[in-house]
Amino acid sequence: MQTIEQTFQVQYSYAVYFTQHLFSLSNPLLQQFFEKTNTETGFQRKALVVVDEGFSEHHPELGRELSQYFATLIPHIQLAPEIITVPGGEACKNDVAQFDKLVKAVDVFGIDRHSFVIGIGGGALLDLVGYAAAVSHRGIKLIRIPTTVLSQNDSGVGVKNSINYKGKKNFLGTFAPPVAVFNDLTFLRSLDDRDWRSGIAEAIKVALIKDAAFFEWIEEHTAALAGRDEEAMAYLIHRCAEMHTDHIAGGDPFEFGSSRPLDFGHWAAHKLEYLTNFEVRHGEAVAIGIALDCVYASKINMLPEAGLQRILDVLARLGFELYHPRLSENDKINLRNGIQEFREHLGGQLTIMLLEKIGKGVEVHELDTEVIAQAVDYLETLPQLTESRILH
Amino acid sequence: MQTIEQTFQVQYSYAVYFTQHLFSLSNPLLQQFFEKTNTETGFQRKALVVVDEGFSEHHPELGRELSQYFATLIPHIQLAPEIITVPGGEACKNDVAQFDKLVKAVDVFGIDRHSFVIGIGGGALLDLVGYAAAVSHRGIKLIRIPTTVLSQNDSGVGVKNSINYKGKKNFLGTFAPPVAVFNDLTFLRSLDDRDWRSGIAEAIKVALIKDAAFFEWIEEHTAALAGRDEEAMAYLIHRCAEMHTDHIAGGDPFEFGSSRPLDFGHWAAHKLEYLTNFEVRHGEAVAIGIALDCVYASKINMLPEAGLQRILDVLARLGFELYHPRLSENDKINLRNGIQEFREHLGGQLTIMLLEKIGKGVEVHELDTEVIAQAVDYLETLPQLTESRILH
Ligand SMILES: NC(=O)c1ccc[n+]([C@@H]2O[C@H](COP(=O)([O-])OP(=O)(O)OC[C@H]3O[C@@H](n4cnc5c(N)ncnc54)[C@H](O)[C@@H]3O)[C@@H](O)[C@H]2O)c1
Ligand SMILES: NC(=O)c1ccc[n+]([C@@H]2O[C@H](COP(=O)([O-])OP(=O)(O)OC[C@H]3O[C@@H](n4cnc5c(N)ncnc54)[C@H](O)[C@@H]3O)[C@@H](O)[C@H]2O)c1
Ligand SMILES: [Zn+2]
Ligand SMILES: [Zn+2]
Repeated sequence: MQTIEQTFQVQYSYAVYFTQHLFSLSNPLLQQFFEKTNTETGFQRKALVVVDEGFSEHHPELGRELSQYFATLIPHIQLAPEIITVPGGEACKNDVAQFDKLVKAVDVFGIDRHSFVIGIGGGALLDLVGYAAAVSHRGIKLIRIPTTVLSQNDSGVGVKNSINYKGKKNFLGTFAPPVAVFNDLTFLRSLDDRDWRSGIAEAIKVALIKDAAFFEWIEEHTAALAGRDEEAMAYLIHRCAEMHTDHIAGGDPFEFGSSRPLDFGHWAAHKLEYLTNFEVRHGEAVAIGIALDCVYASKINMLPEAGLQRILDVLARLGFELYHPRLSENDKINLRNGIQEFREHLGGQLTIMLLEKIGKGVEVHELDTEVIAQAVDYLETLPQLTESRILH
Repeated sequence: MQTIEQTFQVQYSYAVYFTQHLFSLSNPLLQQFFEKTNTETGFQRKALVVVDEGFSEHHPELGRELSQYFATLIPHIQLAPEIITVPGGEACKNDVAQFDKLVKAVDVFGIDRHSFVIGIGGGALLDLVGYAAAVSHRGIKLIRIPTTVLSQNDSGVGVKNSINYKGKKNFLGTFAPPVAVFNDLTFLRSLDDRDWRSGIAEAIKVALIKDAAFFEWIEEHTAALAGRDEEAMAYLIHRCAEMHTDHIAGGDPFEFGSSRPLDFGHWAAHKLEYLTNFEVRHGEAVAIGIALDCVYASKINMLPEAGLQRILDVLARLGFELYHPRLSENDKINLRNGIQEFREHLGGQLTIMLLEKIGKGVEVHELDTEVIAQAVDYLETLPQLTESRILH
């Protein structure tokens, strides 16, 4: 019997909106989105809102604002009677009870494939909510409202979700684009300095591998960014999000191949997050991972010394630590094992992005563990930044 | 700040192969597939095999054959040291421990995104395995080897997977196309008569809504099909699988809209499966669902009486029951509620496919519950088929 050859394409579209005071009655953005989306009639659509506790603590008025906004401007969408609150940060991805809670809410409140799940929070909460929405009824429409720098410029605008499984980071997950992303600059005000800074690492990452001009812009704005200047942050987030979405659309959105250039700096970052039991934030770990791989690239004569110093300088002036004692533990074996684990995590051939120069990454397929150890030593012995140097 | 508009497409391709004695050393089909797929080098690919207990019971030599086939013909793929066995049928989708077992095997055996999970079994087992593979590492390549008529002509060649959640059928799942499907006709020999027959209902379903000539072919081959003629079954499966894959590629593969024509006959089927605690097989329930909706269509003067009789006759001659006492229970309220539940299950507007004539379905957006009740009465009082009429 003749073989059946099946081929088809699935198209995804979504917009990333940039705004302020998203839930203010004078801001029509969300209303307009739902009006545009409401094409099919004849049934009641619903929305289930899930909020990051770390965010809602600082926004006690959120529930009231949301109810008012929907009641006044989006009356055809019925908000679920309860807003679900979930602890923020890695904890929510570690605890399968949080996943169950969301799936149960989808069931109890009758959220169907044409209803919406709205996640409001940091990257961890959005990963959890995205996963729960993606697998409930084989995918409920997801709206992301990221509330950290990292989630606004990177994780929240992308196509991935996940939870951890028995200590394995991101072991369960899917590729599932949202139907819309709303980045509200004012939501970042309540972030502590670590989380404000952390997300900047992802912008430095894309700049380094793809856009020297953006790196120069960051270089010129380190003081503003470190000083929590919102205008500078707005530009940084927009440009980073744009590069991120362009990369997804231009390449291999669901990562069927082995190449993942946006994982520059991430092999060591993943290992460090793990070694510190996620006390080091993702972006903080990425900053160290970038530093490590740039020192490595310079040691193998790939990245010129001047470039390396500019990169380390920008990271340090933003306030990132460039070394963590766990990197050296166990004679650096823990860290070196990270390369093999990273390959297993991605699957396929080991593919690591290194820098040739600022703005240009190149992929390599092996790393020399001795040189990695030397790079760690280099970071360990870097002179500490003085306070004055950070602020100059 | 300017809105970022993101659009991209993801392409999927897979083949459905038809064969016999798939794991015989003289059959190069599987070997050829792996050779074609093995484009990226530099790392070890693995394969994890998961088998339906109801199948392996009848194929005690399976493990040995598999090991031998891989060792001899596909030495570059490393089989996981254990073949995982899972109870077949709806039970495996109900028990979350089975899902956990598969995810754990993926972890323990180091199955990565460029390795394979191979599911061998009926539709239920393939749904479970497909789901576990789809969410592990955000998607491991899935090879389906369906071993029932229904899974060879319908569920196994499509793009959906699922498990049940707290008694909710298919509540958790994803859309995740396989990388290949291998339909082995000889695997059907060990099926009991109910499972042999059950899958024929899906072929009647697609024939009725799309292809009068195929229905006529089935009409002419009821005796052969009921008598377990393999040649007739091979044709039926091929044509049904082809119509199924064509439908997916030609329409809305991941069902973003509300229309699901292939769910003809399924609203009552789902309810009946549930009301009988899945003692009625999916295909058996679909046969009754088709009968019910055809009687309904005739009662509202949509489907001519002659067509109705031909349809009921084909179903009956194949040995399908056309009525089940649970349909009438609770004054038929249980059944009538099924319509609303079906809408919630699909989400969006209620959309039900009915027949205008054999080979041509039309969508309607409501059903009259009184007419449904009358249709049930009609089926209840149908004269039972005598044995001789079944065989003639
Ligand atoms: N899906 C992806 O593509 C992707 C990409 C990168 C990172 N990630 C994931 O993102 C997570 C990290 O995300 P993150 O950096 O946003 O941190 P996070 O989500 O861990 O949040 C950090 C802390 O900030 C709190 N918080 C959130 N918004 C706040 C606000 N506006 N004000 C005050 N507190 C607030 C949270 O409750 C939490 O305690 C990791 O789990 C990582 O794996 C996912
Ligand atoms: N994913 C989809 O698109 C889709 C479509 C339709 C149905 N389904 C699902 O498929 C399931 C029904 O599948 P099914 O009809 O294949 O039945 P099944 O998987 O429930 O299997 C029926 C029985 O046959 C046994 N069995 C399997 N192969 C055998 C063989 N070759 N010899 C002997 N016994 C064998 C099984 O162990 C089981 O006991 C339901 O869970 C239904 O929801 C899924
Ligand atoms: Zn990152
Ligand atoms: Zn079916």
